[in-house]
Amino acid sequence: MIKSIKIEDRRYALDGSAGSDAIHRDPIYSYAVTSLVDDSGVTGTGLAFTLGEGNDLVCKAAQYYAAKLVGRDIEETMANFGELFKQLSNDQQFRWLGPHKGVVHLALASVTNACYDLWAKKRGVPLWKLLIDLSPAEIVATLDLSYLEDELTQQQAIELLKGQESTQMSREAILQSGYPGYDTSIGWFNYSDEKVRENCKKAVAEGFTAMKLKVGSTDPERDIRRAHIVREVAGDNVKVMLDANQQWNLPQAISICNKLKGMNPYWIEEPTHPDDVLAHKTLADAIAPVKLALGEHVPNKIIFKNYLQTGAASFIQVDAVRVGGVSEFITVSLLCKKYGVPVVPHVGDMGQLHQHLVLFNHIAMGHEALFLEHIPHLQKYFENPVQIVNGVYKTPQQPGSSCDLIALN
Amino acid sequence: MIKSIKIEDRRYALDGSAGSDAIHRDPIYSYAVTSLVDDSGVTGTGLAFTLGEGNDLVCKAAQYYAAKLVGRDIEETMANFGELFKQLSNDQQFRWLGPHKGVVHLALASVTNACYDLWAKKRGVPLWKLLIDLSPAEIVATLDLSYLEDELTQQQAIELLKGQESTQMSREAILQSGYPGYDTSIGWFNYSDEKVRENCKKAVAEGFTAMKLKVGSTDPERDIRRAHIVREVAGDNVKVMLDANQQWNLPQAISICNKLKGMNPYWIEEPTHPDDVLAHKTLADAIAPVKLALGEHVPNKIIFKNYLQTGAASFIQVDAVRVGGVSEFITVSLLCKKYGVPVVPHVGDMGQLHQHLVLFNHIAMGHEALFLEHIPHLQKYFENPVQIVNGVYKTPQQPGSSCDLIALN
Repeated sequence: MIKSIKIEDRRYALDGSAGSDAIHRDPIYSYAVTSLVDDSGVTGTGLAFTLGEGNDLVCKAAQYYAAKLVGRDIEETMANFGELFKQLSNDQQFRWLGPHKGVVHLALASVTNACYDLWAKKRGVPLWKLLIDLSPAEIVATLDLSYLEDELTQQQAIELLKGQESTQMSREAILQSGYPGYDTSIGWFNYSDEKVRENCKKAVAEGFTAMKLKVGSTDPERDIRRAHIVREVAGDNVKVMLDANQQWNLPQAISICNKLKGMNPYWIEEPTHPDDVLAHKTLADAIAPVKLALGEHVPNKIIFKNYLQTGAASFIQVDAVRVGGVSEFITVSLLCKKYGVPVVPHVGDMGQLHQHLVLFNHIAMGHEALFLEHIPHLQKYFENPVQIVNGVYKTPQQPGSSCDLIALN
Repeated sequence: MIKSIKIEDRRYALDGSAGSDAIHRDPIYSYAVTSLVDDSGVTGTGLAFTLGEGNDLVCKAAQYYAAKLVGRDIEETMANFGELFKQLSNDQQFRWLGPHKGVVHLALASVTNACYDLWAKKRGVPLWKLLIDLSPAEIVATLDLSYLEDELTQQQAIELLKGQESTQMSREAILQSGYPGYDTSIGWFNYSDEKVRENCKKAVAEGFTAMKLKVGSTDPERDIRRAHIVREVAGDNVKVMLDANQQWNLPQAISICNKLKGMNPYWIEEPTHPDDVLAHKTLADAIAPVKLALGEHVPNKIIFKNYLQTGAASFIQVDAVRVGGVSEFITVSLLCKKYGVPVVPHVGDMGQLHQHLVLFNHIAMGHEALFLEHIPHLQKYFENPVQIVNGVYKTPQQPGSSCDLIALN
C-alpha cells in the first residue's frame, strides 16, 4: 500500500553550451520527481523533465495528483490503470488548465511513471520485463483509449498485440545485442563548427552509426555548412538527422529543407510549431522524399492521432515525460504501429526510462528497433545510469524503470 | 511607468448547479488577477479564468511574466506589444511548459490583459474605444503573427483592416443599439427539466432571442428530450445552441448529432476533444447542414489556423482569457475574418472583457455582430458589471476593460 508521497524539484546546470538548440539557448535540465513510498519499504520514482523555470509548477501539480494515490495497492491500481488515468486526467477542475497538455499533463506523467516504477520494483523486475510479460488484455487495461475510438478501440488494441505474440521470441534477441543508440550531443546549437567536427569524429570512433545536428539558424547558410561538415566527417553510411526545434515558419521551412536535401538527411526534426499539423503535412509533401520527425512537444494521443491521420510524420518521437507517462506512451506507440510509423522517442536526457519502453515496443508490439536518442549530460546523477557500449544501449537488469536519482547529500 | 505588480487568487463558489456541464460538474469560478500599478496612480487589471483547483499555478506563472514589466512605460510597451508578446511567450525555459498552451499561456493572458487595461485607463477611454481609434498599423504592431506566415503576414493584416475603414462609420451604430447577448444559464447540465423550462420562459421574457443548453449526457435520450423542451418553449424564431463540452467521442458525436438535427440547433458546440481538428472535420461533413462551434479550449492561434484551414468550424469561440489575451484574440479574429467565419467568444463569465472585443471586431474588422454569450454568476463581484437590457449588452463607457473586481474588505 502506498503510505506516503514526496515531490522534489531537482535542477542541474549544464556545462558549456550543452543542451542548446535554436529555441532553447540556455536550459537548466530539471526534473519534477514523484516518489511513491510503499509500506513494504519500496519507493516508486517517476520523472517529468523541464528546462528549469517553472519546474516548481509541475511539482505542485504532481503533488495534487499524487496525493490521490495514498492508501492504494499498486497491483490493484495497475490492474485497471487506464480507468484511473482517465479520471486523473479529467479531474473536474484541474482539467480546465489543459486539458491533457501543459503543466498539468507533465505532472501527470511524473506521477504515472512513479506508478509503473513502483509496480516493476515490487515485482522485482526491470520495467521492460514487466511490460513484455503482461498479456495483451493486461497491457490494454493500463491504457486510456478515450477519444481514439475512431481509430483504436480496446478490442483492436488487444488484437494488435496478440498478432505479435507468435513472433515475439525472435525479437527478444535484442535483449542480448542491446538497443542501438544515436548521438545528439555532437552538434548542440551553440557549439562551434570545430567542436561539431571533433564531436562527430569522436561519435564515429565510439561506434555510433547515427547522429544529430541542431539547425534552425537565422542564417540558413550556417545550417547548410554545418550539415555538410557532419556528412563529410561521418561519411555516407552514417545516418545524420537535423533538428530545427520549431524554429522555422512554413515558408522558411520549405525553402531551407529543400536546400538541405543535398546532404541526404535521414530526417528533419521539428521544422515548425508542434501544434501545426497541417503545416507539417504541407511541408512533408513539398520536400519529399526527405522525411519529417516530430513529437517531443506533442502533448497527447489526440494530436498524435491527427499527425498519423495526415501522414505528415515519418518518425514519431513521443516522449513518456511529455505525454501522460508510460501509459500514454504505449497508447501512442499502438497508434503508430497501426499506421506503420516507427517510434523513436525524444529523450532529453530521459534515456533512463525510454530504454525500457523501446524494448517493449520492439519485442511485444513488433516495432522496428531503429535506434534511441542518447544524451549523456545527467547520467552522473542517476543511481543506475544507462550504459552505452559501442553506440548500443545495454539492457538494464535492475528492478524498476532506472529513474532513481542519487540522493542529495 | 509600471512601478509594481500584484497577483491575486480569487475564487467564487457558485449557487446550486450553476456552471455545470457534461465535463465540469462542480466548478468554482476563479480568476488569476494581475494588477500592474503605474506610478501615475492608475492600476491595470487583467484576468485569467479557471474552475478553481490550480488557479494558484496560474497566479505563480503570471507573477513570473508580470515581474518583467516593472519599470516599463505602457505607451512605449503597447507601441510594439507584438514583439514583447513573442518574447514572453517564447521565454527560453518557460516555453518548455507549453509551448503556448496550458498554465503558462493562461498566465500570459492575465498579464497581457492587464497591459491593455492599463493602456486604456491611462488614455481615459474604454478598451473598445482605444482599439477602434488605433490605425491598422498600430493594431498590427500589438500582434505576434509568427507561425501564421503561410496565412496572414503583417502586411496582409494591415490591408485587411484598411479594407474595412470606409464602411466603419456605419457599423458604429452598434454603440447605440448595443451588442446582442445570448443566454447560457437557461440550461446548465445539472438543472432539472423543469428548471430548464422555467429558465427558458424567463429568458424569452427578458428579450433574449438566442440561448444555449448543455448536452453530453451518457443517455442521449436525455439530451434529445431537453433540447426539444427548449425548442418548444422558445419557439421557432429563437436560436437554440447545444453545448456538449467535449463529452463525445467521434462515433458517438456522429450518431447523437444526427438525432439532434430534428430540433434545428443553430450550432452544436464542442462535440469532442478540442485538440482533434480532424475529428471535427469528419463530424462537420457527416452532419451537414448542422454547424459546429468551438474554441473555448483551443489554446492558441496555430490550432485555430488549422481549424479554419479544414473548414470544420462554422463559429469560432476564441476566448481572450484562454489564448494569450487581447492580443492573440485579435490575431485569431483576423484569421477568422480572412476565412469569413464569425467570432462568437466563449465567455465563462468573462463578458466583462469580451463586450469590448466584439465591438472592436464588428466596427474595425467588419465581423458580423452576431451575439455574445452571457453568463451572469459573477457580476456582483465586479466594480462595473456588464449591463444587459432586453437581451442586449449596453456599451460600456468607463475607461479600461471592465475587469476590476471589488476589493476584498
